[in-house]
Amino acid sequence: MLATMMYGAGDVRAEERPEPGILKPTDAIIRLSASCICGSDLWPYRGSNPIAEPLAMGHEYCGIVVEVGSEVKSIRPGQFVVGSFCISDNTCPHCQYGFQSSCEQREFMTGAQAPLVRVPLADGTLVATKEIPSDDLVPGLLAASDVLGTGWYAADAARVQPGCTVVVVGDGAVGLMGVLSARQMGAARIIAMSRHEARQELALELGATDIIAERGDAGVAQLKKMTRNVGADAVLECVGTSESMMQALDCARPGSMIGYVGVPHGVEFDGQQLFFAQKGMLGGPAPVRRFLPHLMDLVLTRRINPGRVFDLELPLADVAQGYRAMDRREAIKVLLRI
Amino acid sequence: MLATMMYGAGDVRAEERPEPGILKPTDAIIRLSASCICGSDLWPYRGSNPIAEPLAMGHEYCGIVVEVGSEVKSIRPGQFVVGSFCISDNTCPHCQYGFQSSCEQREFMTGAQAPLVRVPLADGTLVATKEIPSDDLVPGLLAASDVLGTGWYAADAARVQPGCTVVVVGDGAVGLMGVLSARQMGAARIIAMSRHEARQELALELGATDIIAERGDAGVAQLKKMTRNVGADAVLECVGTSESMMQALDCARPGSMIGYVGVPHGVEFDGQQLFFAQKGMLGGPAPVRRFLPHLMDLVLTRRINPGRVFDLELPLADVAQGYRAMDRREAIKVLLRI
Repeated sequence: MLATMMYGAGDVRAEERPEPGILKPTDAIIRLSASCICGSDLWPYRGSNPIAEPLAMGHEYCGIVVEVGSEVKSIRPGQFVVGSFCISDNTCPHCQYGFQSSCEQREFMTGAQAPLVRVPLADGTLVATKEIPSDDLVPGLLAASDVLGTGWYAADAARVQPGCTVVVVGDGAVGLMGVLSARQMGAARIIAMSRHEARQELALELGATDIIAERGDAGVAQLKKMTRNVGADAVLECVGTSESMMQALDCARPGSMIGYVGVPHGVEFDGQQLFFAQKGMLGGPAPVRRFLPHLMDLVLTRRINPGRVFDLELPLADVAQGYRAMDRREAIKVLLRI
Repeated sequence: MLATMMYGAGDVRAEERPEPGILKPTDAIIRLSASCICGSDLWPYRGSNPIAEPLAMGHEYCGIVVEVGSEVKSIRPGQFVVGSFCISDNTCPHCQYGFQSSCEQREFMTGAQAPLVRVPLADGTLVATKEIPSDDLVPGLLAASDVLGTGWYAADAARVQPGCTVVVVGDGAVGLMGVLSARQMGAARIIAMSRHEARQELALELGATDIIAERGDAGVAQLKKMTRNVGADAVLECVGTSESMMQALDCARPGSMIGYVGVPHGVEFDGQQLFFAQKGMLGGPAPVRRFLPHLMDLVLTRRINPGRVFDLELPLADVAQGYRAMDRREAIKVLLRI
């Protein structure tokens, strides 16, 4: 089959690879309905995460189960499933507390930019639909696998409440899904920080009430002006750089929470500064599995359309072009047709 | 009057100073019923905070109002009052959100290791009792001014819930008040980390169910053993050193919150480490004013006895001896008789 491998910074190839098979009795094999490229795939693509050996890329997936291992109980061939980018058993104490992304058996999914993929711990990781969904819902269900679930977690970790004022730092796919999530949670005011016109428009469509185009201190000053100099009740940090994190901290009012889901790169905190600023923080890889049933229901009943985040579709063979487009910010998120 | 001044590391003196007077129309002058020395007074005493000019020490206080400024409305001479170590107007947005310690007009109290003290923003800062409380309740009410309120905030920030497992890092006065607070909030298991026998005993008396005497990795290993390798649901960090913060982080289960109230000294966090550990954090100077009415009620109705934390009483003239005793950990907390 044709699958996506990364050989080094800037070097992504669609090439022939063997089809995956069941390795453990808890595995399932999925035939993907569609795949996609994640903003986090750009960290190694841009050289921020060094690559020791070729990587099988892709961790977002939904599709039809084609085979399951002998110990898989709740998932069966022929079902349409969505899974989290974090593999979890969904039974350990961390999973029971709703933090499946810190599961005692946690693994991170790989190899999903391909027609077939092996999913470990299928019972704990996958959620099946009752019926095979119609094709037009596939992009939204695929988004639930990571970007939507991650944006939702950012809003959940930031404790977005009905009526509150939310700031979203980052206008990538996750930030945009954070906007959608805050809207679903009833935020009264959702301020998206974005410099890019197309992304501003999509943010407004997904539920943003205001846009701040300025960055850094100018952006923070703008936010303060909009909030009686108070700051936001909840901040979603969806980038992961030192600049974006500082912006998030400066936008949050004392006592509020920052939900941070951009994988931090070069971010450090000074304890005393954080203390006197009195800003709360909770981040980490999103426990998407916790939210999946609810998010899938929202998509299947057409109450949300997170598939809007895909603004470029390419065949899997052209995956390298997709990485380039996202790296250059010519595309928000690329859907790969299998 | 005799008041406490710090001239440099290790150099504290009780000396004659002029009595305070009303400086602003929102001030009140209080005659203290008792005063005390705070663990945070030891930072400058030990040289960790350099001293530019002599400091008027003391920020914990309760007593009788002797005079109020012309704009003070809710407080009147003759009342018994308790105030927070953080001065607040209790009307600004941050105060309304319950974070009076980030009040737009925040000041930190000073000069309360003395018979008389000036309290700015009296209406927003002070809480009066209905009657003059009996003498034996004064230590408990004095504790509410800072250590009890701070321990309570640590438990609140760590989101202690009925039935949960709590770890308290630090067996100083604040840590012990954190134990008491977690007990009041219904925690099922309260694990106090303490190496000192007298403090262990007091922790158990105040509500701890378990003691861990080991520190560092050994202490964390012990905690993990006690919690099926999961970690605690809530952690109270009541010290402020890099070691204590790391211990707190390592004791918390993923998704839990660390309420940190020890002023961080030399503490830094690596963003990526914090991200993948998935530990939540909220700290800062405690918004004692939010909790004061409830805490004072608990003391006045004798449901809690936070005054137990004072294990040495000295006349104000011997304040230097009190600092020495706390510095050498010969006393947990020193009450100063006025």
